[in-house]
Amino acid sequence: MTSGDRNLFNYSSFFLFVAVQAQVLYDFTAEPENNELSVRQGEMLSNVGGGWIEAQNSSGQTGLVPEGYVQVTVEDDDGEWDDNWDDQSMGAYHGNKLDEEGGASGQSVHGPSVKISLNKFTFSKGASPEVFLLAKPPANSTGRLPVYVGEVGPIWLYPMAPLDCVIAHPKKESKLYGLKSFIEYQITPSSTNRPVNHRYKHFDWLYERLMDKFGSALAIPSLPDKQVTGRFEDDFIRMRMEQLQSWMTRMCRHPIVSQSDVFQLFLTYRDEKEWKAGKRKAERDETVGPLIFSVVEPEAADEQKCEHYSRFTKSMEDGVRELLTIGHRHWKRCTGPLPKEYKQIGHAFRNLSTVFTSSKYAGEETLTDALTATGRTFEDIADMFAQQPQKDLNVLLETNSEYKSMLGCFPEIIAVHKVAIEKVKETDRLVSAGKISNNDRKCMNERLGSMSYSLQAEMNHFHSNRIYDYNRAMQVYLEQQATFYQQVCAFVRLLTHFSVS
Amino acid sequence: MTSGDRNLFNYSSFFLFVAVQAQVLYDFTAEPENNELSVRQGEMLSNVGGGWIEAQNSSGQTGLVPEGYVQVTVEDDDGEWDDNWDDQSMGAYHGNKLDEEGGASGQSVHGPSVKISLNKFTFSKGASPEVFLLAKPPANSTGRLPVYVGEVGPIWLYPMAPLDCVIAHPKKESKLYGLKSFIEYQITPSSTNRPVNHRYKHFDWLYERLMDKFGSALAIPSLPDKQVTGRFEDDFIRMRMEQLQSWMTRMCRHPIVSQSDVFQLFLTYRDEKEWKAGKRKAERDETVGPLIFSVVEPEAADEQKCEHYSRFTKSMEDGVRELLTIGHRHWKRCTGPLPKEYKQIGHAFRNLSTVFTSSKYAGEETLTDALTATGRTFEDIADMFAQQPQKDLNVLLETNSEYKSMLGCFPEIIAVHKVAIEKVKETDRLVSAGKISNNDRKCMNERLGSMSYSLQAEMNHFHSNRIYDYNRAMQVYLEQQATFYQQVCAFVRLLTHFSVS
Repeated sequence: MTSGDRNLFNYSSFFLFVAVQAQVLYDFTAEPENNELSVRQGEMLSNVGGGWIEAQNSSGQTGLVPEGYVQVTVEDDDGEWDDNWDDQSMGAYHGNKLDEEGGASGQSVHGPSVKISLNKFTFSKGASPEVFLLAKPPANSTGRLPVYVGEVGPIWLYPMAPLDCVIAHPKKESKLYGLKSFIEYQITPSSTNRPVNHRYKHFDWLYERLMDKFGSALAIPSLPDKQVTGRFEDDFIRMRMEQLQSWMTRMCRHPIVSQSDVFQLFLTYRDEKEWKAGKRKAERDETVGPLIFSVVEPEAADEQKCEHYSRFTKSMEDGVRELLTIGHRHWKRCTGPLPKEYKQIGHAFRNLSTVFTSSKYAGEETLTDALTATGRTFEDIADMFAQQPQKDLNVLLETNSEYKSMLGCFPEIIAVHKVAIEKVKETDRLVSAGKISNNDRKCMNERLGSMSYSLQAEMNHFHSNRIYDYNRAMQVYLEQQATFYQQVCAFVRLLTHFSVS
Repeated sequence: MTSGDRNLFNYSSFFLFVAVQAQVLYDFTAEPENNELSVRQGEMLSNVGGGWIEAQNSSGQTGLVPEGYVQVTVEDDDGEWDDNWDDQSMGAYHGNKLDEEGGASGQSVHGPSVKISLNKFTFSKGASPEVFLLAKPPANSTGRLPVYVGEVGPIWLYPMAPLDCVIAHPKKESKLYGLKSFIEYQITPSSTNRPVNHRYKHFDWLYERLMDKFGSALAIPSLPDKQVTGRFEDDFIRMRMEQLQSWMTRMCRHPIVSQSDVFQLFLTYRDEKEWKAGKRKAERDETVGPLIFSVVEPEAADEQKCEHYSRFTKSMEDGVRELLTIGHRHWKRCTGPLPKEYKQIGHAFRNLSTVFTSSKYAGEETLTDALTATGRTFEDIADMFAQQPQKDLNVLLETNSEYKSMLGCFPEIIAVHKVAIEKVKETDRLVSAGKISNNDRKCMNERLGSMSYSLQAEMNHFHSNRIYDYNRAMQVYLEQQATFYQQVCAFVRLLTHFSVS
């Protein structure tokens, strides 16, 4: 959830449940007696209306502002708008995000570990690989990440019973006497079969925790962002829920994520007290960023496969992008110009039928019936074409979008490894220079081994999921395509009976 | 064949058998010693080459002319270029068209009848309806046009054995020691089963004769014009031949045209002498233009249906235009962007398959095979889409093009009738004014009756042909569409076996 522009909407696509806000782009001085409103550049306006924009400024005054002077933003169901705004304008993403919930600031509790988070800042920003190559593993063994060697090579420890969850019953809730409203989803994990409630905001919190903790080692896909395809509240909520379901399913399938404390907390907390205590604990977790490698438990050191993985993920990302670009273009054609054209062809046939009927010449009912039926069929086919992408292309593009998001994690994951490899190559010199001890060198080598195992385990998890997901996507896609063409075929085949002369 | 621009081609689409000509748009003075050529505005250039255009001017000098200074035209297989040029630049269509064949000028033999030809000039240009309303029928009864009343109303006298002909064996011929070359077609009528040879030029001559003689009463579609869709000589000739076949078939089907002397001459002349004599006779025919109504033999007078026919042909023309516009647009999409997109989708799948194979992860052959097969299938479907319009849309658009051409004849046909109706309404005043006799009034009334019968007979012929042609076109179109979707369906259905996981 780092995209700041996800809350910037086209002004014309608002719904009932979003409160319209606007940022002032230029100073504007109101004309007296004219119902105008003076605003300052940068000021946020609320209750924004249409045309000339009627708005309320930060001092609570209302009046009109020319539309071109402001940039319209939207506050969604979850009140995240102000969080993101802070993100954009001040660059402090964790800013006051959690204050509302009464928790401590996400940033302050991280202590020094935040400084070496590779997921937000590159090495150039001052992180040193020694910090995580020499970090001591925690004394207790909870939270260890064991890697085993399976048939395909190193693999994570998979839980005996796979976890899953069902998100359902989105409910509109409000607080502050109705001033703020949001959607609460009910999530039921397969492990407890006991539902818990969460807002989008909590998913976002979970995502941030997972990124902080595992982002250097695991590919964590982004949460669904706020693309709005439906125009009605119910469509929006349903789509959001489906996307959250996909994301949660993927997280449940990940052996490390699904067994982590923070994820278990999210799915199984029993009351507000347990939730708040767990949140505070998760936010204080210091085993974040590349320090996660200190809890990986390798069986043995292993060859480095960084380069191969780097090439593969890069070329898969290219392939996925190609499919997405072409798929979206095809979607647009199939829902736009193509059905429009089929409708027009249909109209042309029906029109010709009407004209022919007006001839009053006897004995052309067979022809005019055929023309009318053909016209109607083309209009039906137009609708079928327009609805088809939702049925077949959708699963393919959704899968590819998820993978694009995961593939986007690998450059940083691989970068951590490459830096570590370089650093370990230097160890002789570092030992000679007295910068590290022989013991440290041994420790760094072992850590590098763990990292390599961890990377291979993650890649193997990625591959097996990839095969499963693409097989499923292709199956749905092809079956839906076949059904579509079979229907069109049946429609057209019916028509041929008309025109036997 | 009145379209002057049919000989203007894109400069890049020339073939071996066309000699390139060009008209000079602006004066150009050659630089000395530079291989340039001085030309004058309006001058015709021959042997035109590429880039800077190397050309021969009218004085026989050769040299280079800048391409932008000239407008390129093409001399086709039949040497019609100069005829059409005359048509454009001097407005004398019949000009020296027939001189080459040694015959008399087409225009001069028409005598006064040319002045009232309604197909080229409107009434405002001096023709008086009295001329044809009072014209005496020829003494002999050959060439009479009898109308009978059938089940659907007035109908032409249909021949006992329907006529048909087959055009085949186009042969490149040349004359003037190879300086001029043309294509000669072999036409075999079903009546004699004896082939005759004709050049495009002769078809054009026939068309002109039919228009002159029957254009006020019958809908004579235009000859195929010189749209070039193929890039190779053979394609061009085959297409031209198919279009001439369609035109001849339609003419053979028309009871009046097919039984006319000029049409019979064209199909059955036995030697050059008979051909030339027949030509001269046809060109001297004075029963042309609205005078044709003087040979219609009515059974009785009948109500006028002008207004109804006018409305019908107008609305059918609109309907046909709509179908043609949309059909051509759809053709373009089906042969352009759509297969391009399917190819791209195919490529994206195959590319993903290649990338996946490069993972070296075990056990994904089923997936990569499915992706490759899907990619190939999409590429095949792209080709199928691109080839489909030729198979299904073609017959529909060809039929509609022919009808558009015929419908274009009705405004003038109906105009003659309306003028005659107005004139006959005036007869009382004309008799009082002593401009016509009572006998003339009776004669004019009878002639109007014949005209009404003739129009109804032609419309009934048009309707029965229309129903036949559209039934056939729809049948071919729908069957080809069904076959297409069945094939696509089978292709995609095959794929679904791949991805069963």
